[in-house]
Amino acid sequence: MSISTSPHSHLLPQNHNHFLSNHRIHITTTLSLPSPRTFRPIKCAATPTQLQDPLPTQTQAQERVFNFAAGPATLPETVLLRAQSELYLWRGSGMSVMEMSHRGKDFTSIIEKAESDLRTLLQIPPEYSVLFLQGGATTQFAAVPLNLCAPEEPVDYVVTGSWSDKAFKEAQKYCKPSVIWSGKSEKYTKIPSLQGLEQNPDAKYLHICSNETIHGVEYKDYPTPTNPNGVLVADMSSNFCSKPVDVSKFGVIYAGAQKNVGPSGVTIVIIRNDLIGHAQGLTPVMLDYKIHAENRSLYNTPPCYGIYMCGLVFEDLLEQGGLGEVEKNNVKKAEILYNAIDASNGFYKCPVEKSVRSLMNVPFTLEKSELEGEFIKEAAKENMVQLKGHRSVGGMRASIYNAMPLPGVQKLVAFMKDFQARHA
Amino acid sequence: MSISTSPHSHLLPQNHNHFLSNHRIHITTTLSLPSPRTFRPIKCAATPTQLQDPLPTQTQAQERVFNFAAGPATLPETVLLRAQSELYLWRGSGMSVMEMSHRGKDFTSIIEKAESDLRTLLQIPPEYSVLFLQGGATTQFAAVPLNLCAPEEPVDYVVTGSWSDKAFKEAQKYCKPSVIWSGKSEKYTKIPSLQGLEQNPDAKYLHICSNETIHGVEYKDYPTPTNPNGVLVADMSSNFCSKPVDVSKFGVIYAGAQKNVGPSGVTIVIIRNDLIGHAQGLTPVMLDYKIHAENRSLYNTPPCYGIYMCGLVFEDLLEQGGLGEVEKNNVKKAEILYNAIDASNGFYKCPVEKSVRSLMNVPFTLEKSELEGEFIKEAAKENMVQLKGHRSVGGMRASIYNAMPLPGVQKLVAFMKDFQARHA
Repeated sequence: MSISTSPHSHLLPQNHNHFLSNHRIHITTTLSLPSPRTFRPIKCAATPTQLQDPLPTQTQAQERVFNFAAGPATLPETVLLRAQSELYLWRGSGMSVMEMSHRGKDFTSIIEKAESDLRTLLQIPPEYSVLFLQGGATTQFAAVPLNLCAPEEPVDYVVTGSWSDKAFKEAQKYCKPSVIWSGKSEKYTKIPSLQGLEQNPDAKYLHICSNETIHGVEYKDYPTPTNPNGVLVADMSSNFCSKPVDVSKFGVIYAGAQKNVGPSGVTIVIIRNDLIGHAQGLTPVMLDYKIHAENRSLYNTPPCYGIYMCGLVFEDLLEQGGLGEVEKNNVKKAEILYNAIDASNGFYKCPVEKSVRSLMNVPFTLEKSELEGEFIKEAAKENMVQLKGHRSVGGMRASIYNAMPLPGVQKLVAFMKDFQARHA
Repeated sequence: MSISTSPHSHLLPQNHNHFLSNHRIHITTTLSLPSPRTFRPIKCAATPTQLQDPLPTQTQAQERVFNFAAGPATLPETVLLRAQSELYLWRGSGMSVMEMSHRGKDFTSIIEKAESDLRTLLQIPPEYSVLFLQGGATTQFAAVPLNLCAPEEPVDYVVTGSWSDKAFKEAQKYCKPSVIWSGKSEKYTKIPSLQGLEQNPDAKYLHICSNETIHGVEYKDYPTPTNPNGVLVADMSSNFCSKPVDVSKFGVIYAGAQKNVGPSGVTIVIIRNDLIGHAQGLTPVMLDYKIHAENRSLYNTPPCYGIYMCGLVFEDLLEQGGLGEVEKNNVKKAEILYNAIDASNGFYKCPVEKSVRSLMNVPFTLEKSELEGEFIKEAAKENMVQLKGHRSVGGMRASIYNAMPLPGVQKLVAFMKDFQARHA
């Protein structure tokens, strides 16, 4: 298969299916903004374009790219269009969601709906609290030990990549963490055997990162703490809501929203209620789960607009049929991409052990590494962007979160085959 | 003056001036969202309405209210319309700002422009860093002592209301703070004489809250630390960018964005560089100013969309002529409202000492307190919302931040006079 490099043909989807992104939507925006001193008319023309129609000639016409960024990442088009339609005035409230008092009835309805929909999606048991916080997973790296153990208590960390390593290092300030397994010597390409983990029998918790965004390794099942009073804690930032999860296996799940469920600036914590209320005395009030649980995430002003966006994404995931359906799509997308890599006779290589390859983040290299710059550049010309691997590992990385449509992956694979044909 | 209670007349501005909000903009949104399985047309019709024109008959037509909320608060209409116009696709990037990698060139240009414009607005000296963080002022209540002093060192707090009291209490975890003045016995209606403050000569810093959102007291000038090695630290959340400030008088200025400069979820810290790099060993990495300064607010994923919104607000403030012009408007609005209260022969009362009344948050009560519920209810019917005072002080509170247009205050004052005429 070859791909033309004419200016527009790369914009055409490779085949027809039911994904929204297969329908090209051209929004021509001529919304003139009145300055504070003058008043100009506002025009907004949005016209849908049918498949294979010629592109509009207006210079304002814009095209969405396929964004393979690791996070912040691509969001569902339906969610963005919904957000755009009600940004200025939210459903008869007379104001934008960004302007709402976080204690008013409108925002209360938004945050309660978001929590309720997330509970439905993940089937969160009633004895767990859901918190909408700030500061990213990095803040939770401190909050988890500060809330779950005393300074002298042991905890266990499995280090499968950069993020679990950062979590371990931060915990050293607040308790006695041990690295009970590290994939560093194998460049973080593996997940340990769950049975073989030598856990500390007194560890207050066992911490894992369920999917390493940079290295592309993902747990397919989860370890059980050997300490009967210990709990499993997971940083799920980069595969949160990408598939069903048995929440009852975990004491704490935390996730930055900016991969699968919203914009950056929102951190979601799901915590079993009996683990709340034991924070160390020096815990900043904003890192104390008890404060946030008692105040239903409204102790101080939460990141309201981000929470609203997460709520729209949750609605969208439910409309897709829930996380079982979402997982099926993610498996399909990942299979297509990994198969293309593995069928390339070594032209492309994925260093990750096959059984633990991530459905979300697909790192790969070129056998001829000197071509990697050219690969990324040509892909960008074809409107596939953010394919450069993390600076710590090099190569390429395609992040294919929930909102990356199948045609995006299909187009990438077609491009990879074409690139190989031209450079093999 | 009387105000009709007919369904629409309250929507008409009371007089003509140059404020944007005096022009009613009716946006009729019929933007149909395609579901993932179907494809429906997208229509967007936005038609401006001239002053005094009849209201459109479409049921979708919506009207903006005057939102007197204390924060999150009203934002400039121009900023909201700009944000709406480019939410789906930002300026040829092929994606929403919410989807951009925080390390990519597009978002880099956004955060750098925001910082540069803020530096221009506040004339921030080059020896100060500007940080865009998360967690609100409440997180800074811990970060300030953790970064600026050792656990055994003394610091001074002036407690002029609920927020400075919370800041003091959080500092007790991390150093030896003293309350050197408290307005509690006078129900937080005063600011102390700056000369009369009995400061600890060894205090590493002197902490103030420049404007108390709940109690409506505002510093008109700032104290100088008596310790030559001490610095002044100010929580400016609720009057940030409402007037020019001599940044060089401060060691640290911090502010939640959600009053004057953006949506909730962004906290801005302005800090003199020599104060960076001395954090206590137990400081969470996310509360360490050095980490954020060295990484230009990109150590982890920042609240990108909120920073983008702040940048749009900064542009708007510069277009208005800068903070000198902004202050003039704020003074005018506050004068009108305080004058109405003071001229009401005691029907309305503001408990705050006249010389320190806030330009931003105007608390007032009714002599006949049993009418307060009715006042708030009738005002809401007239599209003036969020006028209820904080639960800790009762009564009413009108927050009139930068983005509250003069016609909003004029309409409130007209309503107050009418309400008095009917209930005196």
